[in-house]
Amino acid sequence: MKTITTLEVRESILNNNDELAKKNREKLRESRTFLVNVMGSPGAGKTTLLKRTIEGLKDEFKIGVVEADVDSAVDAEKIAESGVEVIQLHSGGLCHLDAKMAGEGIEALRTEAAGRTLDVVFVENIGNLVCPAEFDIGAALKVMLLSIPEGDDKPLKYPLMFEVSDCLLVSKLDTAEVFDFDMDLLKTRVRQLNPKMEIMALSALKDRGTEEWISYLKKRIKEWRAL
Amino acid sequence: MKTITTLEVRESILNNNDELAKKNREKLRESRTFLVNVMGSPGAGKTTLLKRTIEGLKDEFKIGVVEADVDSAVDAEKIAESGVEVIQLHSGGLCHLDAKMAGEGIEALRTEAAGRTLDVVFVENIGNLVCPAEFDIGAALKVMLLSIPEGDDKPLKYPLMFEVSDCLLVSKLDTAEVFDFDMDLLKTRVRQLNPKMEIMALSALKDRGTEEWISYLKKRIKEWRAL
Repeated sequence: MKTITTLEVRESILNNNDELAKKNREKLRESRTFLVNVMGSPGAGKTTLLKRTIEGLKDEFKIGVVEADVDSAVDAEKIAESGVEVIQLHSGGLCHLDAKMAGEGIEALRTEAAGRTLDVVFVENIGNLVCPAEFDIGAALKVMLLSIPEGDDKPLKYPLMFEVSDCLLVSKLDTAEVFDFDMDLLKTRVRQLNPKMEIMALSALKDRGTEEWISYLKKRIKEWRAL
Repeated sequence: MKTITTLEVRESILNNNDELAKKNREKLRESRTFLVNVMGSPGAGKTTLLKRTIEGLKDEFKIGVVEADVDSAVDAEKIAESGVEVIQLHSGGLCHLDAKMAGEGIEALRTEAAGRTLDVVFVENIGNLVCPAEFDIGAALKVMLLSIPEGDDKPLKYPLMFEVSDCLLVSKLDTAEVFDFDMDLLKTRVRQLNPKMEIMALSALKDRGTEEWISYLKKRIKEWRAL
Protein backbone atom coordinates (compact mmCIF):
# COMPACT_ATOMS: atom_id res chain seq x y z
CA MET A 1 0.00 0.00 0.00
CA LYS A 2 1.05 3.54 -0.80
CA THR A 3 2.52 5.46 2.15
CA ILE A 4 0.17 8.13 3.45
CA THR A 5 1.66 11.61 3.76
CA THR A 6 0.89 12.97 7.22
CA LEU A 7 1.06 16.65 8.08
CA GLU A 8 1.16 18.01 11.64
CA VAL A 9 -0.84 21.25 11.61
CA ARG A 10 -1.39 23.97 14.21
CA GLU A 11 -4.13 26.56 14.60
CA SER A 12 -3.49 30.08 13.27
CA ILE A 13 -2.31 32.19 16.21
CA LEU A 14 -3.69 35.29 14.51
CA ASN A 15 -7.42 35.85 14.77
CA ASN A 16 -7.81 36.01 11.00
CA ASN A 17 -9.72 32.88 10.06
CA ASP A 18 -12.21 34.61 7.76
CA GLU A 19 -9.38 36.30 5.89
CA LEU A 20 -7.56 32.98 5.37
CA ALA A 21 -10.81 31.28 4.36
CA LYS A 22 -11.28 33.99 1.71
CA LYS A 23 -7.75 33.34 0.41
CA ASN A 24 -8.43 29.60 0.25
CA ARG A 25 -11.63 30.33 -1.66
CA GLU A 26 -9.84 32.58 -4.18
CA LYS A 27 -7.10 30.01 -4.81
CA LEU A 28 -9.66 27.22 -5.20
CA ARG A 29 -11.64 29.34 -7.66
CA GLU A 30 -8.44 30.00 -9.65
CA SER A 31 -7.67 26.28 -9.91
CA ARG A 32 -11.37 25.46 -10.42
CA THR A 33 -11.32 23.13 -7.42
CA PHE A 34 -14.67 22.55 -5.68
CA LEU A 35 -14.05 22.19 -1.93
CA VAL A 36 -16.47 20.20 0.26
CA ASN A 37 -16.25 20.43 4.07
CA VAL A 38 -17.64 17.18 5.55
CA MET A 39 -18.59 17.42 9.23
CA GLY A 40 -20.28 15.23 11.84
CA SER A 41 -19.87 13.39 15.16
CA PRO A 42 -17.27 10.65 15.69
CA GLY A 43 -18.60 7.53 14.00
CA ALA A 44 -21.34 9.29 12.00
CA GLY A 45 -20.10 7.56 8.85
CA LYS A 46 -18.06 10.29 7.14
CA THR A 47 -15.37 7.98 5.72
CA THR A 48 -17.86 5.39 4.46
CA LEU A 49 -19.83 8.19 2.77
CA LEU A 50 -16.67 9.53 1.14
CA LYS A 51 -15.69 6.12 -0.20
CA ARG A 52 -19.10 5.69 -1.83
CA THR A 53 -19.13 9.29 -3.11
CA ILE A 54 -15.71 8.90 -4.71
CA GLU A 55 -17.00 5.84 -6.60
CA GLY A 56 -19.83 7.97 -7.99
CA LEU A 57 -17.63 10.89 -9.05
CA LYS A 58 -14.28 9.53 -10.07
CA ASP A 59 -15.06 8.83 -13.74
CA GLU A 60 -15.96 12.48 -14.21
CA PHE A 61 -13.72 14.35 -11.79
CA LYS A 62 -10.16 14.24 -10.47
CA ILE A 63 -10.57 13.91 -6.69
CA GLY A 64 -8.47 14.65 -3.61
CA VAL A 65 -9.22 14.05 0.07
CA VAL A 66 -7.84 15.77 3.17
CA GLU A 67 -8.39 13.59 6.24
CA ALA A 68 -8.22 15.35 9.60
CA ASP A 69 -7.80 13.55 12.89
CA VAL A 70 -6.33 14.11 16.30
CA ASP A 71 -4.24 10.97 15.77
CA SER A 72 -3.76 7.92 13.47
CA ALA A 73 -4.25 7.53 9.71
CA VAL A 74 -6.99 4.88 9.68
CA ASP A 75 -9.40 6.97 7.58
CA ALA A 76 -6.72 8.08 5.10
CA GLU A 77 -5.74 4.43 4.60
CA LYS A 78 -9.36 3.51 3.84
CA ILE A 79 -9.68 6.40 1.37
CA ALA A 80 -6.36 5.54 -0.32
CA GLU A 81 -7.92 2.23 -1.37
CA SER A 82 -10.18 4.28 -3.68
CA GLY A 83 -7.13 5.31 -5.68
CA VAL A 84 -7.54 9.06 -5.14
CA GLU A 85 -5.03 11.56 -3.73
CA VAL A 86 -5.16 11.67 0.07
CA ILE A 87 -3.40 13.61 2.81
CA GLN A 88 -3.67 12.95 6.56
CA LEU A 89 -3.69 15.99 8.85
CA HIS A 90 -3.01 15.69 12.57
CA SER A 91 -4.51 18.55 14.55
CA GLY A 92 -2.38 18.24 17.69
CA GLY A 93 -5.34 17.65 20.01
CA LEU A 94 -7.43 20.43 18.47
CA CYS A 95 -11.11 19.63 17.94
CA HIS A 96 -11.62 21.34 14.56
CA LEU A 97 -9.82 22.56 11.46
CA ASP A 98 -9.34 26.27 10.83
CA ALA A 99 -8.76 27.88 7.42
CA LYS A 100 -4.98 27.85 7.85
CA MET A 101 -4.86 24.11 8.59
CA ALA A 102 -7.22 23.29 5.74
CA GLY A 103 -5.19 25.51 3.37
CA GLU A 104 -2.00 23.64 4.31
CA GLY A 105 -3.75 20.34 3.68
CA ILE A 106 -4.96 21.44 0.24
CA GLU A 107 -1.46 22.66 -0.67
CA ALA A 108 0.05 19.34 0.36
CA LEU A 109 -2.58 17.54 -1.70
CA ARG A 110 -1.63 19.66 -4.74
CA THR A 111 2.02 18.70 -4.27
CA GLU A 112 0.93 15.07 -4.01
CA ALA A 113 -1.09 15.44 -7.25
CA ALA A 114 2.15 16.67 -8.91
CA GLY A 115 0.67 19.44 -11.01
CA ARG A 116 -2.52 17.69 -12.13
CA THR A 117 -5.59 19.79 -11.35
CA LEU A 118 -7.95 18.50 -8.67
CA ASP A 119 -11.59 19.09 -9.60
CA VAL A 120 -13.08 18.18 -6.25
CA VAL A 121 -11.45 18.13 -2.81
CA PHE A 122 -13.19 16.72 0.25
CA VAL A 123 -12.03 17.73 3.70
CA GLU A 124 -13.16 15.21 6.29
CA ASN A 125 -13.21 17.38 9.40
CA ILE A 126 -12.54 16.13 12.95
CA GLY A 127 -15.48 14.21 14.45
CA ASN A 128 -17.26 16.94 16.45
CA LEU A 129 -20.66 18.67 16.23
CA VAL A 130 -19.56 21.90 17.94
CA CYS A 131 -16.35 23.67 16.87
CA PRO A 132 -16.01 22.78 13.15
CA ALA A 133 -19.24 24.77 12.63
CA GLU A 134 -17.50 27.95 13.77
CA PHE A 135 -14.63 27.84 11.27
CA ASP A 136 -15.08 28.73 7.61
CA ILE A 137 -12.33 26.89 5.71
CA GLY A 138 -13.24 28.27 2.26
CA ALA A 139 -15.51 25.42 1.17
CA ALA A 140 -18.01 25.78 -1.70
CA LEU A 141 -20.27 23.27 0.05
CA LYS A 142 -20.71 22.38 3.73
CA VAL A 143 -22.15 18.94 4.31
CA MET A 144 -23.04 17.57 7.71
CA LEU A 145 -23.83 13.99 8.67
CA LEU A 146 -26.17 13.02 11.46
CA SER A 147 -26.42 9.27 11.95
CA ILE A 148 -29.70 7.64 12.99
CA PRO A 149 -28.16 6.19 16.21
CA GLU A 150 -27.30 9.71 17.43
CA GLY A 151 -30.97 10.64 17.75
CA ASP A 152 -33.42 13.21 16.38
CA ASP A 153 -32.82 15.73 19.21
CA LYS A 154 -29.41 16.89 17.98
CA PRO A 155 -30.63 20.11 16.26
CA LEU A 156 -31.82 21.28 19.69
CA LYS A 157 -28.43 20.65 21.28
CA TYR A 158 -25.97 21.57 18.52
CA PRO A 159 -27.89 24.24 16.56
CA LEU A 160 -24.95 26.06 14.92
CA MET A 161 -23.84 23.05 12.88
CA PHE A 162 -27.34 22.79 11.41
CA GLU A 163 -27.50 26.54 10.78
CA VAL A 164 -24.24 26.82 8.83
CA SER A 165 -24.41 23.63 6.72
CA ASP A 166 -25.86 23.58 3.19
CA CYS A 167 -26.81 19.94 3.23
CA LEU A 168 -27.73 17.39 5.91
CA LEU A 169 -27.19 13.71 5.22
CA VAL A 170 -29.04 11.50 7.68
CA SER A 171 -26.72 8.49 7.65
CA LYS A 172 -26.97 4.81 8.65
CA LEU A 173 -30.53 4.72 7.30
CA ASP A 174 -30.30 0.90 7.25
CA THR A 175 -30.44 0.94 11.08
CA ALA A 176 -33.65 3.01 11.28
CA GLU A 177 -35.73 0.06 12.56
CA VAL A 178 -33.41 -0.47 15.53
CA PHE A 179 -33.56 3.11 16.86
CA ASP A 180 -36.35 5.36 18.03
CA PHE A 181 -35.74 8.11 15.46
CA ASP A 182 -38.52 10.39 14.17
CA MET A 183 -37.48 11.63 10.71
CA ASP A 184 -40.38 14.10 10.40
CA LEU A 185 -39.63 15.58 13.81
CA LEU A 186 -35.96 15.91 12.84
CA LYS A 187 -36.88 17.73 9.63
CA THR A 188 -39.17 20.13 11.50
CA ARG A 189 -36.39 20.88 13.99
CA VAL A 190 -33.84 21.39 11.22
CA ARG A 191 -36.13 23.65 9.15
CA GLN A 192 -36.63 25.91 12.17
CA LEU A 193 -32.88 26.53 12.24
CA ASN A 194 -32.18 26.48 8.51
CA PRO A 195 -35.18 26.63 6.15
CA LYS A 196 -32.94 26.24 3.07
CA MET A 197 -31.16 23.10 4.27
CA GLU A 198 -31.13 20.25 1.73
CA ILE A 199 -31.97 17.05 3.67
CA MET A 200 -31.37 13.52 2.36
CA ALA A 201 -31.36 10.17 4.15
CA LEU A 202 -29.01 7.42 3.06
CA SER A 203 -26.98 4.38 3.93
CA ALA A 204 -23.59 4.54 2.22
CA LEU A 205 -22.80 1.05 3.53
CA LYS A 206 -25.93 -0.54 2.03
CA ASP A 207 -25.96 1.86 -0.94
CA ARG A 208 -29.44 3.22 -0.23
CA GLY A 209 -30.23 6.84 -1.14
CA THR A 210 -26.67 7.43 -2.35
CA GLU A 211 -27.66 8.15 -5.98
CA GLU A 212 -29.79 11.12 -4.94
CA TRP A 213 -26.87 12.54 -2.92
CA ILE A 214 -24.37 12.05 -5.73
CA SER A 215 -26.73 13.68 -8.26
CA TYR A 216 -27.20 16.64 -5.93
CA LEU A 217 -23.43 16.97 -5.48
CA LYS A 218 -22.75 16.81 -9.24
CA LYS A 219 -25.39 19.49 -9.80
CA ARG A 220 -23.78 21.74 -7.18
CA ILE A 221 -20.32 21.22 -8.73
CA LYS A 222 -21.58 22.08 -12.21
CA GLU A 223 -23.45 25.18 -11.02
CA TRP A 224 -20.30 26.38 -9.25
CA ARG A 225 -18.11 25.75 -12.29
CA ALA A 226 -20.55 27.72 -14.47
CA LEU A 227 -20.27 30.83 -12.25
CA MET B 1 -43.16 19.95 35.46
CA LYS B 2 -40.61 21.71 37.64
CA THR B 3 -38.83 24.63 35.95
CA ILE B 4 -35.21 23.81 35.12
CA THR B 5 -32.66 26.33 36.37
CA THR B 6 -30.34 27.25 33.50
CA LEU B 7 -26.96 28.86 34.01
CA GLU B 8 -24.96 30.57 31.25
CA VAL B 9 -21.31 29.82 31.93
CA ARG B 10 -18.09 31.08 30.35
CA GLU B 11 -14.60 29.59 30.26
CA SER B 12 -12.05 30.81 32.80
CA ILE B 13 -9.98 33.52 31.11
CA LEU B 14 -7.06 32.68 33.40
CA ASN B 15 -5.00 29.66 32.50
CA ASN B 16 -5.57 28.08 35.91
CA ASN B 17 -7.80 25.06 35.26
CA ASP B 18 -5.77 22.63 37.38
CA GLU B 19 -5.85 25.03 40.31
CA LEU B 20 -9.64 25.43 40.07
CA ALA B 21 -10.07 21.66 39.67
CA LYS B 22 -8.07 21.19 42.88
CA LYS B 23 -10.37 23.67 44.67
CA ASN B 24 -13.47 21.85 43.38
CA ARG B 25 -11.96 18.59 44.63
CA GLU B 26 -11.27 20.02 48.12
CA LYS B 27 -14.80 21.43 48.45
CA LEU B 28 -16.32 18.16 47.29
CA ARG B 29 -14.22 16.23 49.80
CA GLU B 30 -15.38 18.58 52.57
CA SER B 31 -19.04 18.02 51.73
CA ARG B 32 -18.40 14.30 51.06
CA THR B 33 -19.80 14.62 47.54
CA PHE B 34 -18.56 12.07 44.99
CA LEU B 35 -18.26 13.79 41.57
CA VAL B 36 -18.55 11.77 38.34
CA ASN B 37 -17.56 13.33 34.99
CA VAL B 38 -19.54 11.58 32.22
CA MET B 39 -18.09 12.06 28.73
CA GLY B 40 -18.76 10.75 25.21
CA SER B 41 -19.80 11.67 21.66
CA PRO B 42 -23.15 13.27 20.84
CA GLY B 43 -25.77 10.54 21.01
CA ALA B 44 -23.56 8.00 22.81
CA GLY B 45 -26.31 7.49 25.39
CA LYS B 46 -25.12 9.58 28.35
CA THR B 47 -28.55 10.75 29.46
CA THR B 48 -30.14 7.31 29.17
CA LEU B 49 -27.27 5.86 31.19
CA LEU B 50 -27.72 8.52 33.87
CA LYS B 51 -31.45 7.87 34.16
CA ARG B 52 -30.82 4.16 34.71
CA THR B 53 -27.91 4.83 37.09
CA ILE B 54 -30.01 7.20 39.21
CA GLU B 55 -32.64 4.45 39.58
CA GLY B 56 -29.93 2.15 40.93
CA LEU B 57 -28.47 4.64 43.41
CA LYS B 58 -31.27 6.85 44.63
CA ASP B 59 -32.42 4.69 47.55
CA GLU B 60 -28.92 4.86 49.02
CA PHE B 61 -27.60 8.26 47.96
CA LYS B 62 -28.84 11.83 47.56
CA ILE B 63 -28.10 12.65 43.90
CA GLY B 64 -27.58 15.79 41.82
CA VAL B 65 -26.96 16.18 38.09
CA VAL B 66 -25.29 19.00 36.15
CA GLU B 67 -26.28 18.87 32.49
CA ALA B 68 -24.02 20.72 30.07
CA ASP B 69 -25.04 21.64 26.53
CA VAL B 70 -24.36 24.28 23.95
CA ASP B 71 -28.10 24.97 23.86
CA SER B 72 -31.53 23.65 25.03
CA ALA B 73 -32.54 21.82 28.21
CA VAL B 74 -33.78 18.54 26.71
CA ASP B 75 -31.44 16.36 28.78
CA ALA B 76 -32.10 18.24 32.02
CA GLU B 77 -35.83 17.80 31.48
CA LYS B 78 -35.38 14.04 31.03
CA ILE B 79 -33.26 13.83 34.19
CA ALA B 80 -35.74 15.94 36.19
CA GLU B 81 -38.29 13.15 35.68
CA SER B 82 -36.10 11.00 37.96
CA GLY B 83 -36.87 13.36 40.83
CA VAL B 84 -33.24 14.35 41.53
CA GLU B 85 -31.73 17.84 41.68
CA VAL B 86 -30.70 19.03 38.22
CA ILE B 87 -29.06 22.15 36.77
CA GLN B 88 -28.67 22.97 33.08
CA LEU B 89 -25.44 24.69 32.00
CA HIS B 90 -25.12 26.46 28.65
CA SER B 91 -21.55 26.69 27.47
CA GLY B 92 -21.97 29.55 24.98
CA GLY B 93 -20.76 27.54 22.00
CA LEU B 94 -17.82 26.03 23.87
CA CYS B 95 -17.16 22.34 23.25
CA HIS B 96 -16.21 21.29 26.79
CA LEU B 97 -16.56 22.21 30.45
CA ASP B 98 -13.61 23.60 32.40
CA ALA B 99 -13.21 23.45 36.20
CA LYS B 100 -14.66 26.96 36.64
CA MET B 101 -17.84 26.14 34.73
CA ALA B 102 -18.26 22.80 36.52
CA GLY B 103 -17.67 24.50 39.89
CA GLU B 104 -20.39 27.05 39.16
CA GLY B 105 -22.75 24.24 38.19
CA ILE B 106 -22.07 22.35 41.42
CA GLU B 107 -22.61 25.52 43.47
CA ALA B 108 -25.94 26.17 41.74
CA LEU B 109 -26.94 22.57 42.41
CA ARG B 110 -26.15 23.05 46.12
CA THR B 111 -28.36 26.14 46.20
CA GLU B 112 -31.08 24.12 44.48
CA ALA B 113 -30.70 21.36 47.10
CA ALA B 114 -31.29 24.02 49.78
CA GLY B 115 -28.73 22.85 52.29
CA ARG B 116 -29.26 19.11 51.99
CA THR B 117 -25.97 17.31 51.30
CA LEU B 118 -25.56 15.75 47.88
CA ASP B 119 -23.77 12.38 48.08
CA VAL B 120 -23.19 11.92 44.37
CA VAL B 121 -23.10 14.52 41.60
CA PHE B 122 -22.95 13.57 37.93
CA VAL B 123 -21.73 16.09 35.38
CA GLU B 124 -22.91 15.18 31.89
CA ASN B 125 -20.26 16.86 29.79
CA ILE B 126 -20.82 18.28 26.28
CA GLY B 127 -20.98 15.58 23.58
CA ASN B 128 -17.40 15.54 22.28
CA LEU B 129 -14.55 12.99 22.30
CA VAL B 130 -11.74 15.56 22.09
CA CYS B 131 -11.71 18.60 24.40
CA PRO B 132 -13.49 17.37 27.56
CA ALA B 133 -10.54 14.95 27.97
CA GLU B 134 -8.17 17.89 28.43
CA PHE B 135 -9.98 19.55 31.33
CA ASP B 136 -9.86 18.19 34.87
CA ILE B 137 -13.05 19.39 36.60
CA GLY B 138 -12.24 17.85 39.99
CA ALA B 139 -14.09 14.57 39.52
CA ALA B 140 -13.43 11.50 41.67
CA LEU B 141 -14.35 9.28 38.70
CA LYS B 142 -14.11 9.88 34.96
CA VAL B 143 -16.44 7.71 32.92
CA MET B 144 -16.52 7.66 29.14
CA LEU B 145 -19.15 6.13 26.88
CA LEU B 146 -18.43 4.70 23.46
CA SER B 147 -21.54 3.47 21.69
CA ILE B 148 -21.42 0.41 19.44
CA PRO B 149 -22.60 2.41 16.36
CA GLU B 150 -19.55 4.70 16.63
CA GLY B 151 -17.17 1.85 15.80
CA ASP B 152 -14.23 0.02 17.37
CA ASP B 153 -11.58 2.31 15.80
CA LYS B 154 -12.22 5.28 18.07
CA PRO B 155 -9.26 4.62 20.47
CA LEU B 156 -6.96 5.12 17.46
CA LYS B 157 -8.52 8.45 16.57
CA TYR B 158 -9.32 9.98 19.96
CA PRO B 159 -6.65 8.45 22.23
CA LEU B 160 -6.57 11.07 25.01
CA MET B 161 -10.16 10.42 26.11
CA PHE B 162 -9.33 6.73 26.56
CA GLU B 163 -6.08 7.56 28.38
CA VAL B 164 -7.59 9.88 30.99
CA SER B 165 -10.82 8.01 31.80
CA ASP B 166 -11.10 5.50 34.66
CA CYS B 167 -13.93 3.53 33.17
CA LEU B 168 -15.20 2.83 29.65
CA LEU B 169 -18.83 1.91 29.16
CA VAL B 170 -19.48 0.40 25.73
CA SER B 171 -23.08 1.51 25.28
CA LYS B 172 -26.04 0.46 23.06
CA LEU B 173 -25.00 -3.17 23.45
CA ASP B 174 -28.48 -4.19 22.25
CA THR B 175 -27.51 -3.01 18.73
CA ALA B 176 -24.34 -5.13 18.51
CA GLU B 177 -25.82 -7.46 15.88
CA VAL B 178 -26.55 -4.56 13.53
CA PHE B 179 -23.02 -3.12 13.50
CA ASP B 180 -19.63 -4.48 12.54
CA PHE B 181 -18.02 -3.95 15.96
CA ASP B 182 -15.19 -6.13 17.26
CA MET B 183 -15.28 -6.01 21.08
CA ASP B 184 -12.00 -7.92 21.53
CA LEU B 185 -10.20 -5.61 19.09
CA LEU B 186 -11.61 -2.59 20.93
CA LYS B 187 -10.38 -3.94 24.27
CA THR B 188 -6.90 -4.56 22.84
CA ARG B 189 -6.76 -1.02 21.48
CA VAL B 190 -7.98 0.46 24.77
CA ARG B 191 -5.54 -1.57 26.89
CA GLN B 192 -2.64 -0.26 24.80
CA LEU B 193 -3.60 3.29 25.79
CA ASN B 194 -4.78 2.61 29.34
CA PRO B 195 -3.97 -0.80 30.87
CA LYS B 196 -5.91 0.01 34.06
CA MET B 197 -9.14 1.01 32.31
CA GLU B 198 -12.26 -0.72 33.65
CA ILE B 199 -14.31 -1.82 30.61
CA MET B 200 -17.97 -2.83 30.74
CA ALA B 201 -20.54 -3.28 27.99
CA LEU B 202 -24.18 -2.44 28.57
CA SER B 203 -27.50 -1.27 27.22
CA ALA B 204 -29.12 1.20 29.60
CA LEU B 205 -32.22 1.27 27.40
CA LYS B 206 -32.71 -2.52 27.52
CA ASP B 207 -31.27 -2.82 31.04
CA ARG B 208 -28.48 -5.24 30.06
CA GLY B 209 -25.17 -5.10 31.93
CA THR B 210 -26.35 -2.19 34.06
CA GLU B 211 -26.17 -4.06 37.38
CA GLU B 212 -22.42 -4.65 36.95
CA TRP B 213 -21.88 -0.95 36.24
CA ILE B 214 -23.97 0.16 39.23
CA SER B 215 -22.16 -2.28 41.55
CA TYR B 216 -18.81 -0.97 40.32
CA LEU B 217 -19.93 2.63 40.89
CA LYS B 218 -21.21 1.89 44.42
CA LYS B 219 -17.90 0.21 45.22
CA ARG B 220 -15.94 3.23 43.97
CA ILE B 221 -18.15 5.62 45.99
CA LYS B 222 -17.70 3.57 49.18
CA GLU B 223 -13.92 3.31 48.71
CA TRP B 224 -13.73 7.08 48.23
CA ARG B 225 -15.84 7.79 51.32
CA ALA B 226 -13.63 5.51 53.41
CA LEU B 227 -10.48 7.51 52.50
